[in-house]
Amino acid sequence: MDSSNPNQKRWIDEHHNGTRYGLEGQIIVTEKSAYQEITIFESKKHGRGLLLDGCWMATENHEKYYHECLVHPALCSSQSLKKVLIIGGGDGGSARECLLHQEIEHLDLVEIDQRVIELSQKYLTGIGGKAWRDRRLHINIKDGTRWVAEADNSFYDVIIVDGSDPKGPAEGLFDKKFFQNCHRILSPGGVFATQSESPEAFQRIHIETVKILRDVFEYADPLYGWVPIYPSGIWSWTFAAKDNARYLQPITTRGKKIEEDCEIWSLSWQKAAFNAIPAFVERELNK
Amino acid sequence: MDSSNPNQKRWIDEHHNGTRYGLEGQIIVTEKSAYQEITIFESKKHGRGLLLDGCWMATENHEKYYHECLVHPALCSSQSLKKVLIIGGGDGGSARECLLHQEIEHLDLVEIDQRVIELSQKYLTGIGGKAWRDRRLHINIKDGTRWVAEADNSFYDVIIVDGSDPKGPAEGLFDKKFFQNCHRILSPGGVFATQSESPEAFQRIHIETVKILRDVFEYADPLYGWVPIYPSGIWSWTFAAKDNARYLQPITTRGKKIEEDCEIWSLSWQKAAFNAIPAFVERELNK
Repeated sequence: MDSSNPNQKRWIDEHHNGTRYGLEGQIIVTEKSAYQEITIFESKKHGRGLLLDGCWMATENHEKYYHECLVHPALCSSQSLKKVLIIGGGDGGSARECLLHQEIEHLDLVEIDQRVIELSQKYLTGIGGKAWRDRRLHINIKDGTRWVAEADNSFYDVIIVDGSDPKGPAEGLFDKKFFQNCHRILSPGGVFATQSESPEAFQRIHIETVKILRDVFEYADPLYGWVPIYPSGIWSWTFAAKDNARYLQPITTRGKKIEEDCEIWSLSWQKAAFNAIPAFVERELNK
Repeated sequence: MDSSNPNQKRWIDEHHNGTRYGLEGQIIVTEKSAYQEITIFESKKHGRGLLLDGCWMATENHEKYYHECLVHPALCSSQSLKKVLIIGGGDGGSARECLLHQEIEHLDLVEIDQRVIELSQKYLTGIGGKAWRDRRLHINIKDGTRWVAEADNSFYDVIIVDGSDPKGPAEGLFDKKFFQNCHRILSPGGVFATQSESPEAFQRIHIETVKILRDVFEYADPLYGWVPIYPSGIWSWTFAAKDNARYLQPITTRGKKIEEDCEIWSLSWQKAAFNAIPAFVERELNK
């Protein structure tokens, strides 16, 4: 990111391997936390946005393209929905989508960087919103890899991994050991979900992540959608389960209760999107 | 586009409403034709690319994300496949995808701007390739709206509209009158296809285009995919037919012959993608 002049109208671009995606606007705050550079940006087009180490994470007007597709395919297909875990997700978007589901009794949010939460609560109220005041939400400032190593067997009904790219603080969230712990602490009828990068901009990481999940879990499948602010615009989330590929068939009664709150996700979108796999990805996954 | 210094290593960005998408590289040639500014760019990441009036049209390494999704859903579902029409498509990518189908006997390419074809033939050999030498291809330098006004009833088995945004030379390719002529010259078991913009970056145009096509044709449905170099990265193509929504069910034997040449399109992708409609689009279309 090129961010030498805060408080000035300008463009901020995320650069990625000979491509760049930028928004016009103004930096509100930029600071170095113990883990990363955190920037809050007021964009002309997409509301306020968050960048970590120069990479776009979320904007108020666009974040549903990402959060709905990560959260609802898992929450609409897990057998039970009492105890849910989010690893990362410090902007509050995944928590907000989870808390639409009234069946959830206890939601653990485990974020390594307290400053991401504090700055999101202060400046990105359009993302977390009232989720931060929901009594079901429990915020834990801790390393997610440690949290899953220490949690009890079969404790969570749904586990959602909402981290950034696998460099810096999120690196451990793509390791086999981490996924093995997630498998261990997931209930038998539960669903695991992780953001799994772009099959175009991060093809090797994406394919490897799906393959590791297929090795660790009994069932695992990717889903492709769009996140306009991320490199290439194509994004993926990968879902996994123990007893069957239950994420392929969302529970209609549960989905109907949240459909009207959603911009991208719907019951019919979820059912179709798991089968709309670009040909080159299908070939790579079958190698 | 910001293109004041040709022949220099640099970034070229397409700007769109507070967002921009750029590639790093070098301008090879930029000229004003009778219709538009044409730029050929050597990018570091995606091979050579074409811009018209500062908007990305295609790059050698990425154009299949667009051309396959425009062409094959139509060509794999039309009853007959002898006579095919492309309006626009001066870079040669749609013609190349069409000519994979050996059933085609006669392919008319109707491009308004001869310079787009000439520069593409000279510099973008990775896009048109050997299609330009195929004896089934007939190049016609003419306004597409005139061509469809003058063609015979039920003449074409497939009509493909491969134009740019509805401003400048492509403006008439979004008019009801144009679509009515396309309907008239399409055979009863034929399929019509058009690029129909981004449901995010050009939402109003997209929704209106689908609605006009549903008014003019007996059946019409949009399909959503990814074009990383276009505004928002989400792109759409809309298909229409007279006798039934035949584009929803591609012909397996025909599709099998081209599947191994495709990067995005596959029989299973086509069947699923027509049902993977983002919730906000579904609501807008039903208004």
